[in-house]
Amino acid sequence: MLNSKNVYLGKVRSSIRELFEYGKRRKEEIGEENVFDFSLGNPSVPAPEAVREALEDIIANTDPVVLHGYTSAQGDFSVRKTIADYINSRFQTALTADCLYMTCGAAASLTIVLNAILNPGDEVITVAPYFPEYKVFTGHAGGKLIAVDGAEGTFGIDIKNIKAVLTPRTKAVLINSPNNPSGVVYGEEDIVNLVKAISEYSLKHGTEIYLISDEPYRELVFDQETHVPFIMNYYERSIICYSYSKSLSLPGERIGYIAVNNKMPEWEEVYAGVCGAGRALGYVCAPNLFQQLVKRVCGTTSDISIYKRNRDRLLSALREYGYEVVKPEGAFYMFVKALERDAKQFAERAKQFELLLVAGDDFGTPGYVRISYCVSPEMIERSLPAFKALADSYK
Amino acid sequence: MLNSKNVYLGKVRSSIRELFEYGKRRKEEIGEENVFDFSLGNPSVPAPEAVREALEDIIANTDPVVLHGYTSAQGDFSVRKTIADYINSRFQTALTADCLYMTCGAAASLTIVLNAILNPGDEVITVAPYFPEYKVFTGHAGGKLIAVDGAEGTFGIDIKNIKAVLTPRTKAVLINSPNNPSGVVYGEEDIVNLVKAISEYSLKHGTEIYLISDEPYRELVFDQETHVPFIMNYYERSIICYSYSKSLSLPGERIGYIAVNNKMPEWEEVYAGVCGAGRALGYVCAPNLFQQLVKRVCGTTSDISIYKRNRDRLLSALREYGYEVVKPEGAFYMFVKALERDAKQFAERAKQFELLLVAGDDFGTPGYVRISYCVSPEMIERSLPAFKALADSYK
Repeated sequence: MLNSKNVYLGKVRSSIRELFEYGKRRKEEIGEENVFDFSLGNPSVPAPEAVREALEDIIANTDPVVLHGYTSAQGDFSVRKTIADYINSRFQTALTADCLYMTCGAAASLTIVLNAILNPGDEVITVAPYFPEYKVFTGHAGGKLIAVDGAEGTFGIDIKNIKAVLTPRTKAVLINSPNNPSGVVYGEEDIVNLVKAISEYSLKHGTEIYLISDEPYRELVFDQETHVPFIMNYYERSIICYSYSKSLSLPGERIGYIAVNNKMPEWEEVYAGVCGAGRALGYVCAPNLFQQLVKRVCGTTSDISIYKRNRDRLLSALREYGYEVVKPEGAFYMFVKALERDAKQFAERAKQFELLLVAGDDFGTPGYVRISYCVSPEMIERSLPAFKALADSYK
Repeated sequence: MLNSKNVYLGKVRSSIRELFEYGKRRKEEIGEENVFDFSLGNPSVPAPEAVREALEDIIANTDPVVLHGYTSAQGDFSVRKTIADYINSRFQTALTADCLYMTCGAAASLTIVLNAILNPGDEVITVAPYFPEYKVFTGHAGGKLIAVDGAEGTFGIDIKNIKAVLTPRTKAVLINSPNNPSGVVYGEEDIVNLVKAISEYSLKHGTEIYLISDEPYRELVFDQETHVPFIMNYYERSIICYSYSKSLSLPGERIGYIAVNNKMPEWEEVYAGVCGAGRALGYVCAPNLFQQLVKRVCGTTSDISIYKRNRDRLLSALREYGYEVVKPEGAFYMFVKALERDAKQFAERAKQFELLLVAGDDFGTPGYVRISYCVSPEMIERSLPAFKALADSYK
């Protein structure tokens, strides 16, 4: 008898991956340019030129024994120091290198943090729509994911829904803003209300509740007036899970970090838990070359103007065709209301128009589909008649 | 309440790491050249020039969106195909790309395999001396590590010790050859006897026992007559955990693989378990750049002649001074009998001679110390008078 949970997870492809595979076959049949694949969140904008230059320079001019050698498990000190300094100057925090733990990307950041803080049966609250792997990560760490609906019409945080599920077992609230799959950014009011609710609850019940912020899309914000609150400035018991996958277009290289807020009394315990969980999960250190890379290009991002252009074009066109869409302020996803009750049926019908859209059911919000618009602007243009025809087919 | 197990693991530094930190301080006090640090297994031989050339070529000539993009979770198909073909031609197997799963190094390979096959309470047998993290990895996966003593005088496999601990809960036997910390290679007779014992037991009791081979040191073998048996040629239910950390001197870059033997009836189930466990632990894919690298340099190794030279020099000198050492046939470790009963006391006394040796207690074999000789030949020469003085201090 193998571990049946993990065998199951390995067999059941996510519906996103399933759709992507369908798209590959379909492209072979009718030509790549005739399939409008909005299924995956793989950045279409290349890493900035600074990445190539830095990689070439590091490889050419560093002793390979040092460059490719182990770093300490939490990451190279100078890398952590550089990132801590960068965060401090940008967000007026006072982090040290010892608050940072370098990871193999956002998924690793999350599994490590969850394994650091959860005991069997602990609950983690998140807001739907949410990234489906949260459930897998929380489950493996022995916890239970409790998803509550986001605010109607905006997909922001509906604080009464959070309050309704707070229990003595609540160990964390996990948020993701800019959000996958809605593209929505939780505003300052949302964060302030959330912090107030969990502070009051934990004070009253003598518990600790951590606020975990999953931030792979932090830099992908399109409008100057959109402000992504930095949770450490609002709540002591906060932990940030960051990834360079989207901001530097390096998703396959697996580099990110965990930052533990040193304003919380027990931050050193939490950090020790992070180190121990990383060890138990088999993370020896984050890839050294990419640690050195992010030290060099800290603060740089890919050219995200294409994503903004895609958003603007798609949003105005879809609204013109009669779709209901909450305006995405960041990331590269759009959550669109299905034109029939069952989003899976709607996504099936979209396939007839060669549109590959992911039904929202897996994100905890039925009745919607996700569009990943990290694609070429040309594909967006080519896809518009199909979106129009799909809408017309319901009239 | 945080997860106390993981907090503990994060706080309790391994004694190896502790000694390494002591060495760093001591070097600052009395000068680097006066401390003989044999504590860590960090390769001192640089990655072969082919690594630098391949990295530079790949970075200069690959579309960054493809190069740094996600691969499938199990790894890029062409990378897995190349490695499967290489293994097949070297070991007369018939693996396909679908038997291979690319990982972030040996530790990740092990945690993923253990999480794929173990259910709570399952037992994993290993042979002492053994790598201490085996206990951590097995424990996190819900299992229990059962260590048995290696053969007296040789540190090979003592089959009666294995037979004595086989139970219906035995889910796997985990071996590591060439061995850390003894440098010993398990010969064909050891493997044949082991396979016979577990085959007979599992047949009789209707259980399945997997043989997991942890092979970061496979290529580090010094003498032509030393043959490291390839377990897939001996046992159906075998799984290989490989890493390029030592063979290509890339320990900080985290690249390796799991190979599931497709001769076992349920190999596709095991592979699904591997995919699911990787997902649950947060491993999205192995770093893409290093996947492409190992595809290019598959079969190349660092220049290991220095390790052989170090072994020969150190072995003959230590024996001359009166130390008892089992001749290491591979890896870059030597396991030396302490000159007093308590190896920790012995290692403490060695410090007075500026020799940093790791007591064998953590490896499950008290009374010995480990010497990591992946150091410069010059340091070996400089250290010899200290080894002599240490031995003399016991006369």
